[in-house]
Amino acid sequence: MTQTDTVHLVEAATTAARDAFAALRATTPTERASLLEAIASEIEADKDAIIAAAVAESHLPEGRITGEVGRTTGQLRLFAGVVRAGDHLGVRLDPALPDRTPLPRADLRQRMVPLGPVAVFGASNFPLAFSTAGGDTASALAAGCPVVVKGHPAHPETAALVATAASRAVQAAGLPAGVFTLLDSRETGTGYEVGEALVADERIKAVGFTGSRGGGLALAAVAAKRPEPVPVYAEMSSVNPVVVLPGALADSAETVEKLAAAYVGSLTLGAGQFCTNPGLLFLPTGEAGDAFLAAAGRAVGEATGQRMLTPGIASAYGSGVEGVGALDGVKVVASGSAAGEEAPAPALAVVSGDAPDDAFEEVFGAFGVVVRYSSAADLAPRLAAMEGQLTATVHYDASAETGDPGDTEAARTLLPVLEDRVGRILFNGWPTGVEVGHAMVHGGPFPATSDSRTTSVGSRAIERFQRPVCYQDVPAELLPDAVRDDNPWGLVRRVDGTLELPR
Amino acid sequence: MTQTDTVHLVEAATTAARDAFAALRATTPTERASLLEAIASEIEADKDAIIAAAVAESHLPEGRITGEVGRTTGQLRLFAGVVRAGDHLGVRLDPALPDRTPLPRADLRQRMVPLGPVAVFGASNFPLAFSTAGGDTASALAAGCPVVVKGHPAHPETAALVATAASRAVQAAGLPAGVFTLLDSRETGTGYEVGEALVADERIKAVGFTGSRGGGLALAAVAAKRPEPVPVYAEMSSVNPVVVLPGALADSAETVEKLAAAYVGSLTLGAGQFCTNPGLLFLPTGEAGDAFLAAAGRAVGEATGQRMLTPGIASAYGSGVEGVGALDGVKVVASGSAAGEEAPAPALAVVSGDAPDDAFEEVFGAFGVVVRYSSAADLAPRLAAMEGQLTATVHYDASAETGDPGDTEAARTLLPVLEDRVGRILFNGWPTGVEVGHAMVHGGPFPATSDSRTTSVGSRAIERFQRPVCYQDVPAELLPDAVRDDNPWGLVRRVDGTLELPR
Repeated sequence: MTQTDTVHLVEAATTAARDAFAALRATTPTERASLLEAIASEIEADKDAIIAAAVAESHLPEGRITGEVGRTTGQLRLFAGVVRAGDHLGVRLDPALPDRTPLPRADLRQRMVPLGPVAVFGASNFPLAFSTAGGDTASALAAGCPVVVKGHPAHPETAALVATAASRAVQAAGLPAGVFTLLDSRETGTGYEVGEALVADERIKAVGFTGSRGGGLALAAVAAKRPEPVPVYAEMSSVNPVVVLPGALADSAETVEKLAAAYVGSLTLGAGQFCTNPGLLFLPTGEAGDAFLAAAGRAVGEATGQRMLTPGIASAYGSGVEGVGALDGVKVVASGSAAGEEAPAPALAVVSGDAPDDAFEEVFGAFGVVVRYSSAADLAPRLAAMEGQLTATVHYDASAETGDPGDTEAARTLLPVLEDRVGRILFNGWPTGVEVGHAMVHGGPFPATSDSRTTSVGSRAIERFQRPVCYQDVPAELLPDAVRDDNPWGLVRRVDGTLELPR
Repeated sequence: MTQTDTVHLVEAATTAARDAFAALRATTPTERASLLEAIASEIEADKDAIIAAAVAESHLPEGRITGEVGRTTGQLRLFAGVVRAGDHLGVRLDPALPDRTPLPRADLRQRMVPLGPVAVFGASNFPLAFSTAGGDTASALAAGCPVVVKGHPAHPETAALVATAASRAVQAAGLPAGVFTLLDSRETGTGYEVGEALVADERIKAVGFTGSRGGGLALAAVAAKRPEPVPVYAEMSSVNPVVVLPGALADSAETVEKLAAAYVGSLTLGAGQFCTNPGLLFLPTGEAGDAFLAAAGRAVGEATGQRMLTPGIASAYGSGVEGVGALDGVKVVASGSAAGEEAPAPALAVVSGDAPDDAFEEVFGAFGVVVRYSSAADLAPRLAAMEGQLTATVHYDASAETGDPGDTEAARTLLPVLEDRVGRILFNGWPTGVEVGHAMVHGGPFPATSDSRTTSVGSRAIERFQRPVCYQDVPAELLPDAVRDDNPWGLVRRVDGTLELPR
């Protein structure tokens, strides 16, 4: 595969996507929703083959991959529902006021239109739900944008099977094939030039990416340098701080033990290969904290490594743990067992000195860093100084007597700080496991993402791929259905500023 | 003024803004709306002095400036209404489903939070409505973001008077002064380093800009190079194409004459110093088109230049007209009278050859370029090939018999093309005059703006300065008011995906 061939493959895909744009954006809500549902059904039809390929390529357990099929099809159907309801069209009507003085008001109508072809870079850690026909693809198609997926080289066969299913649905809908194209890594090669050519391509109007900070920043830089810059939605890196307030450890030794076990469970789940893995935990000094740490250390020590997604990820994990462990004041206090080179040992480190909290960039895998604090009053400035994160978690017990400030007051002080630093705030839970719904935010300030104004999971994700257009005095016979007076699509509309539900 | 002093002034302003952020974002809808209304009232209290200063500094007529005071205060009150209603908070609730299988669902709540301090770069052509306390400032404050305005050197006294009024309102509300700061160009100097230092400052979390393409691109580049990139909303340049379809000229010689007069009226309004000035007009070949062109040429020839905003703008207009006039196939066919060096003559040019439509970047001022076309069927690809624009206008007459395609069919073909290229589509009107309401879009694809996903005029502009946060299983006692079960602010909420109006 020469670089010229690669560029040709990219250009063929983006040209097809551009040429398919008019047909896709012209679909009615019903047609577009049906397309999304058909993709879900076609994936289900090939479920067995897809699961087998994904398990073989990702080394993730069959149960997890089976669950991910459900998540992927559920996501497509969620967006079908969003498209049918049509609230994302954001229709606004300001009727004409011909008699207004000093100047009459024209008839003004607004709706959202799709941006154009979208490049999607799937993640290795969710070979289905965040990859070929995952969240970015589903939300872009829902918005009316053709999609070109840069196939992830960690699961090429899975990608090809899913793409075949999606393309069958596109064909059955009578839409041009360019509505959905996979750039198969086995054909394009796996070098950076594929992704860079795709993002630099003038026919691409937005980019969805889930992966490493380095990868996301590189693509954002390519997009910013284009003659016409385009939005890049890169979900990159996060250490997902967890704050254990004193009350959470106050009840009994058993509570402490259970909390530590739950922490290590979240930390080691799926070999720790989650964007929301709890990489940094703030723990009170004192006996209860010591007991938590000892219990967590034991649990990590008893854990066995699981095979990671790729040899490269396993090796980056190893050097990441080594790098953090070598920092001043940091000590690796527990290590589990490796199960071969690609299944490295889970590990736990403790910060004893004054290492700044920001020293700990994400180490992708089952590695936790515990920071001790002596007063809950110190937490707010430390968390305020952290980089942007996908999530932050607080463990607390409102009823526990823990001195001044009590857990409730401490949590109350932390809340606005966390709002300013993260996309999702959890209490008394663990950040792994991202619900796909309407209220979810999988996003957050830089560098958790390149664009904090939105989410890559949940129904709001559709908003990433559209922009508003205003129609001024456009004759009724020419108005798009979405903004017609008789509201043929039964849309929610904002009339003169006030929301009106369809009857 | 040394560069060090300038940097200190910028840092003092951004530090005050950062320190004021917590207090501003903690305001209730009523408190924040009252602040916006108080700024409007304080501006009205100083109306006479503000109008006198703005007329003297901008050379715009008193009637126009008086109208702009109303637009500025109306805009502040519009956003007060938006804040009181609270729809922009985008509240979403996905209630817990503890019994769901295979996994329970947590309680999930979402709302928008403000991004943080915003830098505002006002425009010279709207010294009130798009400047110190103009649309960007009003929408940023409404979102809960402190504002640092880089004062426009073309109207320093106006800026200072408006800032004093705004600061009185901030003080009366008991909020920290850092909620609103003007960097007075008489103190900071007028070099590029003020704006660049402001946009590069880590305490600034978003930028609003209205001005030239060069200026906007320079600031966007500074923002992209920050360790933490931030959104830049730059409204830059647009030639606002107008398409005259054959039917619009078919009725009578009088119709043609009137249309040409209206065109030149829009072209020369306010010395042509509008972002939405109709800089490029597509006119059919043939007799009726010839008559339109002759009438427009006469009207331009009879027009006298008005004093432009600054000597620099007047001189840029002169070289702009010269530059376009020197292009192959372009001919300046009419010129009005100059009224001194700062009030250059309005002018009209015609493209006779094959000069590409994209050769005509905006010339800020009363200069129109007319392109002739022989078939309406050729228009769609030509408009599709244009750069992004703020507006596009179509003049047509559905009832006129104009052959194949008729105006209606031609317009129907153009509409999706225009949707893809512009922010606002107008029929049978002129783009100058931007209504401030709910359905307006003052935006559009690059290079009309640096971010097409929003608008800088109208109530949707508030969305530029916020991002979503999700609360997962946050205890009731800690939940922000906006997402509490009992809905104390009476907000519209999306519950399990369905919009519910407050009772």
